Amino acid sequence: MDGVETHSNERGGMVEGRIQVGVMGASGTVGSRLVAMLVDHPWFELVEVSASERSEGARLAERMDADASSLPPALGELVLRATEGAWSAPLIFSALPSGIARAVEPALAARGHLVVSNASAFRADPGVPLIIPEVNPDHLSLVGEQGHPEGGGLVTNPNCVVAGLAMALAPLHRSFGLEAVVATTFQAISGAGRPGPSALDIVDNMIPWIGGEEEKIAAEPRKILGDPGAPADFAVDATATRVPVLHGHTVSVGVRLREPATPEEARAAFETFGRTARLGELPSSPERILAVTDQPDRPQPRLDRDAGDGHGVTVGRIRRGEVMHLSFVVLAHNLVRGAAGAALLNAELCAARGMVASGTPTAAP
Amino acid sequence: MDGVETHSNERGGMVEGRIQVGVMGASGTVGSRLVAMLVDHPWFELVEVSASERSEGARLAERMDADASSLPPALGELVLRATEGAWSAPLIFSALPSGIARAVEPALAARGHLVVSNASAFRADPGVPLIIPEVNPDHLSLVGEQGHPEGGGLVTNPNCVVAGLAMALAPLHRSFGLEAVVATTFQAISGAGRPGPSALDIVDNMIPWIGGEEEKIAAEPRKILGDPGAPADFAVDATATRVPVLHGHTVSVGVRLREPATPEEARAAFETFGRTARLGELPSSPERILAVTDQPDRPQPRLDRDAGDGHGVTVGRIRRGEVMHLSFVVLAHNLVRGAAGAALLNAELCAARGMVASGTPTAAP
Amino acid sequence: MDGVETHSNERGGMVEGRIQVGVMGASGTVGSRLVAMLVDHPWFELVEVSASERSEGARLAERMDADASSLPPALGELVLRATEGAWSAPLIFSALPSGIARAVEPALAARGHLVVSNASAFRADPGVPLIIPEVNPDHLSLVGEQGHPEGGGLVTNPNCVVAGLAMALAPLHRSFGLEAVVATTFQAISGAGRPGPSALDIVDNMIPWIGGEEEKIAAEPRKILGDPGAPADFAVDATATRVPVLHGHTVSVGVRLREPATPEEARAAFETFGRTARLGELPSSPERILAVTDQPDRPQPRLDRDAGDGHGVTVGRIRRGEVMHLSFVVLAHNLVRGAAGAALLNAELCAARGMVASGTPTAAP
Amino acid sequence: MDGVETHSNERGGMVEGRIQVGVMGASGTVGSRLVAMLVDHPWFELVEVSASERSEGARLAERMDADASSLPPALGELVLRATEGAWSAPLIFSALPSGIARAVEPALAARGHLVVSNASAFRADPGVPLIIPEVNPDHLSLVGEQGHPEGGGLVTNPNCVVAGLAMALAPLHRSFGLEAVVATTFQAISGAGRPGPSALDIVDNMIPWIGGEEEKIAAEPRKILGDPGAPADFAVDATATRVPVLHGHTVSVGVRLREPATPEEARAAFETFGRTARLGELPSSPERILAVTDQPDRPQPRLDRDAGDGHGVTVGRIRRGEVMHLSFVVLAHNLVRGAAGAALLNAELCAARGMVASGTPTAAP
Repeated sequence: MDGVETHSNERGGMVEGRIQVGVMGASGTVGSRLVAMLVDHPWFELVEVSASERSEGARLAERMDADASSLPPALGELVLRATEGAWSAPLIFSALPSGIARAVEPALAARGHLVVSNASAFRADPGVPLIIPEVNPDHLSLVGEQGHPEGGGLVTNPNCVVAGLAMALAPLHRSFGLEAVVATTFQAISGAGRPGPSALDIVDNMIPWIGGEEEKIAAEPRKILGDPGAPADFAVDATATRVPVLHGHTVSVGVRLREPATPEEARAAFETFGRTARLGELPSSPERILAVTDQPDRPQPRLDRDAGDGHGVTVGRIRRGEVMHLSFVVLAHNLVRGAAGAALLNAELCAARGMVASGTPTAAP
Repeated sequence: MDGVETHSNERGGMVEGRIQVGVMGASGTVGSRLVAMLVDHPWFELVEVSASERSEGARLAERMDADASSLPPALGELVLRATEGAWSAPLIFSALPSGIARAVEPALAARGHLVVSNASAFRADPGVPLIIPEVNPDHLSLVGEQGHPEGGGLVTNPNCVVAGLAMALAPLHRSFGLEAVVATTFQAISGAGRPGPSALDIVDNMIPWIGGEEEKIAAEPRKILGDPGAPADFAVDATATRVPVLHGHTVSVGVRLREPATPEEARAAFETFGRTARLGELPSSPERILAVTDQPDRPQPRLDRDAGDGHGVTVGRIRRGEVMHLSFVVLAHNLVRGAAGAALLNAELCAARGMVASGTPTAAP
Repeated sequence: MDGVETHSNERGGMVEGRIQVGVMGASGTVGSRLVAMLVDHPWFELVEVSASERSEGARLAERMDADASSLPPALGELVLRATEGAWSAPLIFSALPSGIARAVEPALAARGHLVVSNASAFRADPGVPLIIPEVNPDHLSLVGEQGHPEGGGLVTNPNCVVAGLAMALAPLHRSFGLEAVVATTFQAISGAGRPGPSALDIVDNMIPWIGGEEEKIAAEPRKILGDPGAPADFAVDATATRVPVLHGHTVSVGVRLREPATPEEARAAFETFGRTARLGELPSSPERILAVTDQPDRPQPRLDRDAGDGHGVTVGRIRRGEVMHLSFVVLAHNLVRGAAGAALLNAELCAARGMVASGTPTAAP
Repeated sequence: MDGVETHSNERGGMVEGRIQVGVMGASGTVGSRLVAMLVDHPWFELVEVSASERSEGARLAERMDADASSLPPALGELVLRATEGAWSAPLIFSALPSGIARAVEPALAARGHLVVSNASAFRADPGVPLIIPEVNPDHLSLVGEQGHPEGGGLVTNPNCVVAGLAMALAPLHRSFGLEAVVATTFQAISGAGRPGPSALDIVDNMIPWIGGEEEKIAAEPRKILGDPGAPADFAVDATATRVPVLHGHTVSVGVRLREPATPEEARAAFETFGRTARLGELPSSPERILAVTDQPDRPQPRLDRDAGDGHGVTVGRIRRGEVMHLSFVVLAHNLVRGAAGAALLNAELCAARGMVASGTPTAAP
């Protein structure tokens, strides 16, 4: 942030010389949500959007997976370009499918773009940071070792259900040390993107499996809660399921701790973290990144997914177990804290740390 | 069965001299399902039905929580009586709320009726057997010690979600010894009876708590899998949730075993039990009491709840864990295997064992 | 508004000397929504709330049918009083069940309170105005003939599905004259209040009947679109159904007109009315009270119910018929435009017209 | 049926020399349902199945849109062939998409196959009969004029929502003469086939438009209720919507009659038709093809769609209107009476009339 002339606006950020950004995969569920979040963003100005071949050349407003009526005309009129080829914006968000991300993201980083990705392609790569800004911002140091030119780099955010889970595990791990985690998820329909599950398969039903998800739930929290390059050492059993809920991933969690804690001690750790780990300098950071509910039947996806405009994580039902030390339930909005909002916070973190290329079209924070 | 002249019918049972039975709480969700299952039952003849004061005097067909159009007129015309007072049938099913059951059931047993109850009131009582016929029929011996007159006694079946869970745990416990169980449930709407959750609370939502349920999930499997009067010794952590599914309770289960087993060994134990523990002499016993599915995304409530006409339990997703030895998913129909069908099978078991009072209106099996 | 010293605030209204208001039935679905809408209202200050006997004495925050966490502490701490007895606020909202409203509302009006009611009890009474502020504000003249003391009176708003329907019929009636209306509704779950339909009855289902609703759909639009005391003269056939949608009532409408109009002429009438009939001086009046969508598959309840913060009505699918002259689909949020918001707009209209008692605790607009 | 040696079986039909049949599009929603209905069919033996290129060569059991576990192994092992090319069975069902049907069906008829199609491609063709066996079996005479070789011909069944609607209109048209029909539909998810609506679009929502559907609802009943080649003359306004119901299309209907009838007279016409128009000689014909319910809140899709194993249509809420003479609600199972069952009944009708080619592999009825 050093040396950049700015003035604050309503969202507490800087407006002069907004950083130009692009969104790859802007017509998908996550990409469209990102576009909506970038409207009037105090630091970022959306100038480029891409979509798959089928939508190339169309206006963004015609292809968004969201109601485009609230989009400012200037954004709605952006023409969807191909994902391949040169981009001009110094900061590029990736909401690409994993296969395409694998080919495109490193190439852009190599050309000096900071790529902030929601794709899973490189999350497991030891040289690529997997970041929740409030949990492991220090992992950004890995970008410097990626060998890209000034301003180039690749930063990822966790899987949509891991985002909330890892946020809840963080204070427990720091205060008491995690030894083992058993997690069963209740994942929302929108977590599957478009088209997602057919209504024929999910109405009056649940599906006790999501391909590839359980491996991520096991691996990603260990990477996030460890040191850069050295994952934390705890065991994870995960069962990932899809339930007929539109938005909001809920997880039933049991943990065994290295230093056993009472529910009250765990509650205090959640509370303290929720209040203090906030990064208030980031415009999209919510007042409470993690809140504890004492109502016996909460958190519930419909009632709690919009906490902190979707950036807030809610923990409830903290109790002692016979098998695991503690059980609790954690909920986060899969499209905001778990995807588009996660990428946006990561981009804000990078901008605040001065990681966006200096040779950008306009002065940046 | 000894000494009773019978002849077999299509359902493999006996028809001459059917045992007269009553249903307490016949207008509720479970009671109505029981009534429907008793239509043309080869051993039992429904002659008495009760409901709460509000419905007293009404015809059964008017108050059933089910489409009464398929009910034979003779049954539909039965008049709902008060639950209190003298009953004539030797075998009385109880689909009562727990509070009322607590007062009524022992009184009936003391008057020489065999009470087969789906209520939770006495499930935890060490002197009252908690039975899944295919798992612990030997626990019926407890009835003899209840001190009731000839033919009198009280038999219970497990909670709707325990019915399927305990069935799946049985072969693991017998083959490998259970040490610990971590279970998260996905319970259907009909498990709450009438009126059950308001649609306002459960559409596009899940509720991560069901009052009193987790205690039952911890206690009942230990009682069922133990010896009469001596519960089995394993730890249980349970999280009970309600999901927007009409029927079919699903459970995500992790187990730690005294003698570790591979998924293949567990699969074999499930399969063998599913084929061999059947009690073929009971008319409602399904061909396969427990089946294993190898499809990665099964069991699913809408697709699998009607296995064995709702009496069959389905297990899937058997796999090795990092924390627990094994994880798997189990599903059963909460109204059939988990409630009405459970009581019916218990009654059939008692009848087959000659436990129904001899002084019954007509000769009994 | 004449002669009242005020100053404008952000919502375009007056803040000095807010009018004290009460809400009867504040713990129900509609009452709770009203409470939420009164938070920071520029003209009204909520000072009294009542609920049924069961909730009497409890804090409002404990009994609201809404998440009370966003309620200012001052409101949440209001103690629920009995509905009967004397009230102090000059303006009382009624979100009572019809039976109780029938007894309570006239008594309050007779004591000089302006009662703004969402209940159906007096909607059909020729002496009680049934108001949609943007459609028939002139019907307020009926209050003067009610014979109540200064400041006393009774004003009602239409049934939740009529609110949107009558708004859409208004421009057609004025421009072309209505002769006949055939309407089939798709009403949301929340329209039934608490507890509303059991999830057992509405998941994977629809219910083609809502008791008493079709009579209101026939009668209320005629009253609203007529002169005070002289209902308009057109025929109505209504079929009212409940569908598994949380909020937002949709209506499929066919109309026969006295002076036939093309779809384009009807579209123009809707558009003009939507832009010009707004009462901009009312703080809760939306920018567009009625909007036309040209997307072939809109309006849809989940996508369009929040137009104008729920005060906006959306019309789509305007087309020529073989039987009726025109067909179209209209949608409105049943809890906002159709209930709480309807009452609030009516109260704002009365306040703006200087109809609230002068002897109010603080200077009123 | 003349001159065919047969013997009756349990389903009331003939078994010796079953007619070999094929199903084109056997892996889709309708085709798979047809396959399931052909299991143990007394007249037909399924010997050939086709699917799209993607599934060519796979076993039917692997690709069915249904649980294949209940399929007899002999059927499950049938290999999916290409739809193009020569077929051997004399009777071919078509569950093809309309575009493919247009090319394939006439070619097969020209080669002497009787094609019984659920596709919409030729329904509007004046030379192709559009049949509901119980309503207009005489339209089969059109097949003789199609100019195909002996045994060749093309027969179609109505659109899934028209099937129930036209059945309900038939007795009214015959008894009183239809002048005008206003219909609003509530169509189930499965009516859209696979994949059908994304759960993201239909949970907590309804969609007030189904492309191309309203034109069919207007045209098909006129063709069915008219004479061969001369459609009946009544006006139709239709609004077609999709609701979150799995199966069962409901329609809210208003009719104007040439000879006005009371609700009681209409009820009697429905009842008489429902009992007498049955074609008892067809194995799949239900006991009651149309039933009237007097319960005020019926028919409901979840409760009534399986009447007559899905072949029965249910009418309720018959009442007088102010605009139309009568209003009522009609419901039918869209996959059975509205698609697969409709085709099956048509095939049974053709077989009973001796229309299947004599040169068939085995003796036919």
